[in-house]
Amino acid sequence: MTQSILEQLDTVLASRKTGDPDSSYVASLHHKGLNKILEKVGEEAIETVLAAKDAERDQDNSKLIYETADLWFHSLVMLSHLGAGHEQVLDELARRFGLSGHDEKAARDK
Amino acid sequence: MTQSILEQLDTVLASRKTGDPDSSYVASLHHKGLNKILEKVGEEAIETVLAAKDAERDQDNSKLIYETADLWFHSLVMLSHLGAGHEQVLDELARRFGLSGHDEKAARDK
Amino acid sequence: MTQSILEQLDTVLASRKTGDPDSSYVASLHHKGLNKILEKVGEEAIETVLAAKDAERDQDNSKLIYETADLWFHSLVMLSHLGAGHEQVLDELARRFGLSGHDEKAARDK
Amino acid sequence: MTQSILEQLDTVLASRKTGDPDSSYVASLHHKGLNKILEKVGEEAIETVLAAKDAERDQDNSKLIYETADLWFHSLVMLSHLGAGHEQVLDELARRFGLSGHDEKAARDK
Repeated sequence: MTQSILEQLDTVLASRKTGDPDSSYVASLHHKGLNKILEKVGEEAIETVLAAKDAERDQDNSKLIYETADLWFHSLVMLSHLGAGHEQVLDELARRFGLSGHDEKAARDK
Repeated sequence: MTQSILEQLDTVLASRKTGDPDSSYVASLHHKGLNKILEKVGEEAIETVLAAKDAERDQDNSKLIYETADLWFHSLVMLSHLGAGHEQVLDELARRFGLSGHDEKAARDK
Repeated sequence: MTQSILEQLDTVLASRKTGDPDSSYVASLHHKGLNKILEKVGEEAIETVLAAKDAERDQDNSKLIYETADLWFHSLVMLSHLGAGHEQVLDELARRFGLSGHDEKAARDK
Repeated sequence: MTQSILEQLDTVLASRKTGDPDSSYVASLHHKGLNKILEKVGEEAIETVLAAKDAERDQDNSKLIYETADLWFHSLVMLSHLGAGHEQVLDELARRFGLSGHDEKAARDK
């Protein structure tokens, strides 16, 4: 079975949570603590907003994609730091929109 | 084949992009324009940061999951407004981390 | 002696801190608590950033002035909520830039 | 007559707007352009919000004052970059609250 990119990413993030802060950026974020991680979430949100304004003006989404990836990445690090993961966020979105989600898939797999 | 939650969500968002602003929240955001959508991205980023601080203090992630879902949701609306989608963001993350992503899957499917 | 606008504003904000939440916006913010006030600070920061982008494009600063006033206003409410005031912020700026500030003025007045 | 701290600061910022980017932080911000300045405004807003949460928890406002000074400072640089100044923001606040402001002072001085 193919793992989704977000599943693979959660595995990578979990393995780096306890890594060496000097050699891993993710480990260094966890080492510096929640405020540092949240500063990065906020910074990337602003950079995403600025990139979106420029994307509309320049009709070029490349920087927008890059900054949104940064925003999602740092929000995954935030979730990991607090013991949560992307599946809970996607389940919440599935619940709101009546989508077929992880919970239902788990039920089907029984 | 089962579609992922994000794939289903992109389909929902695309269908509502041209919907009735009076009956659809997503349509109303597109109707109000990019600045309104970006204000929401920024607001949800702040609410996510506040929820993370409270989650650490209260040892309860429920509000954090809810606010992160809001943040991701509004960033998907932003991507949709500018003609992009979640796959490009996930491909960028896959590229950075050397993960097996959509591009490689497409290559395998040939 | 003429009071500065910020001094007058701090006086107004102090008087409304304990006002009726139903008839005073400032009182309602204090009543809702710190998270609500900080959400407003964050929202106004995003709106200021968007207004600045549009000001550069349109060569018109009127919305930028309006949003920056909103940002400063809500940061004054935040300071008031936590028992601080604008003078401490200005003193910090004076200290950094070697300016003649409130502390020095107080010293001169002795 | 004593100049206010903000008046002195606007003078400092104006003089550094065209300074050497290698020796002046303010000059380097102007040299990098509006997006860089707005990233800083956004970053300082997030750091102010985080400092406010910690100030409430720790009953200590020192970091809050420091971060609010950073936020106001970078918003002054933003105004300067776009050809505006603090007086317009204070006049807007005076107008809203019916305070005795610069405009009225100018009228009185005639």
